[in-house]
Amino acid sequence: MSDLTELRDGMRRFTEERDWARFHDPKSLALALVGEVGEVAELLQWLPADEARKRLTSEPLASRIGEELSDVLLYLVRLADVVEVDLFEAATRKLASSENRFDADEFRSRAPEKS
Amino acid sequence: MSDLTELRDGMRRFTEERDWARFHDPKSLALALVGEVGEVAELLQWLPADEARKRLTSEPLASRIGEELSDVLLYLVRLADVVEVDLFEAATRKLASSENRFDADEFRSRAPEKS
Amino acid sequence: MSDLTELRDGMRRFTEERDWARFHDPKSLALALVGEVGEVAELLQWLPADEARKRLTSEPLASRIGEELSDVLLYLVRLADVVEVDLFEAATRKLASSENRFDADEFRSRAPEKS
Amino acid sequence: MSDLTELRDGMRRFTEERDWARFHDPKSLALALVGEVGEVAELLQWLPADEARKRLTSEPLASRIGEELSDVLLYLVRLADVVEVDLFEAATRKLASSENRFDADEFRSRAPEKS
Repeated sequence: MSDLTELRDGMRRFTEERDWARFHDPKSLALALVGEVGEVAELLQWLPADEARKRLTSEPLASRIGEELSDVLLYLVRLADVVEVDLFEAATRKLASSENRFDADEFRSRAPEKS
Repeated sequence: MSDLTELRDGMRRFTEERDWARFHDPKSLALALVGEVGEVAELLQWLPADEARKRLTSEPLASRIGEELSDVLLYLVRLADVVEVDLFEAATRKLASSENRFDADEFRSRAPEKS
Repeated sequence: MSDLTELRDGMRRFTEERDWARFHDPKSLALALVGEVGEVAELLQWLPADEARKRLTSEPLASRIGEELSDVLLYLVRLADVVEVDLFEAATRKLASSENRFDADEFRSRAPEKS
Repeated sequence: MSDLTELRDGMRRFTEERDWARFHDPKSLALALVGEVGEVAELLQWLPADEARKRLTSEPLASRIGEELSDVLLYLVRLADVVEVDLFEAATRKLASSENRFDADEFRSRAPEKS
């Protein structure tokens, strides 16, 4: 079984055992996702940009960022499940579409402008 | 190869082919993640809570939510790669930890209070 | 002196007294804003949609939401100051522009579609 | 009349003229706020940290950031109104509380640790 399927099933079981599906409508899960992304942001906010990577790959931040990114993933997987999105299939397709949209030569070393 | 590893490698290749690693410091990627979560939020914001799931599992929203959730996943996978987090391993551990923290009987049908 | 000017000056003084201006580049402040919005989201996430307003206008949530919305405002005011935006002037103009863009008759009772 | 009161009244009138109050429950407004914060993030995400301020205070970004921060403020003001928070009063109190919590000497030049 694949990673994302395993996490999806784990979150399903976790939810069912607590009878929490009643709380898991899409808007509530989206807010939960936002809450977890907020915790990632709080962890990074005051790090100097050019030291952030180094600090985040050393303790104590390495464990913290691993947990916060996990929380984001778990709610993302749960939200995708509730709205019946196959995340791996959708993300694979999206990546292929971005590869077409941002031609490697045209966009080399140049951040895509926000349109 | 697992799903998340495949997406990670896909994002690495996509980034390298465009020489975009220079833009992918943790704070920039976190902001990109926020931007994509913002698009998920915009898609859901005005849906009536009790119709959201039905609307999101029918077209045209079904395709849209699939794309937006994919964008969130792709930046999450990329950010995890840059800070050297093994997302599957970390999320599996986090889920196990939540299973311990929220006892199934104690928390049945009761949303965890924000502490 | 106006409200927003007073809060801006209060945040300036708060920042200067702690010599924190060094941390207040736009990307860091944007992440701090995201962190605070995440706290608002966490407070609301599991409330039933149709009871949210009632719950948030009674204690203990009334005080909590007031604090979290304040944190969002304070970082927003600080970020605007750092990028030299006059928030009141800009918001007044934006509201006038939305009034033109969303004709009251055309959009009556109809949420604007996400384009 | 104060700035924030004027914006609150402007948003009330804007909402009433379109009969949009039906969409403005707290969770929906919180998601709308997240959507606008996402647009701020997208504008900043790929700017080099040490050039961000300069770029954002020159056109074309100066106008763009003014609009995006305005959108955040307008939804924040609207959400506060719906949950009956007096934003100016609450933010003034919160700032005073932060001044007590972060002693100027103890925290000089030192970012508060995320606890």
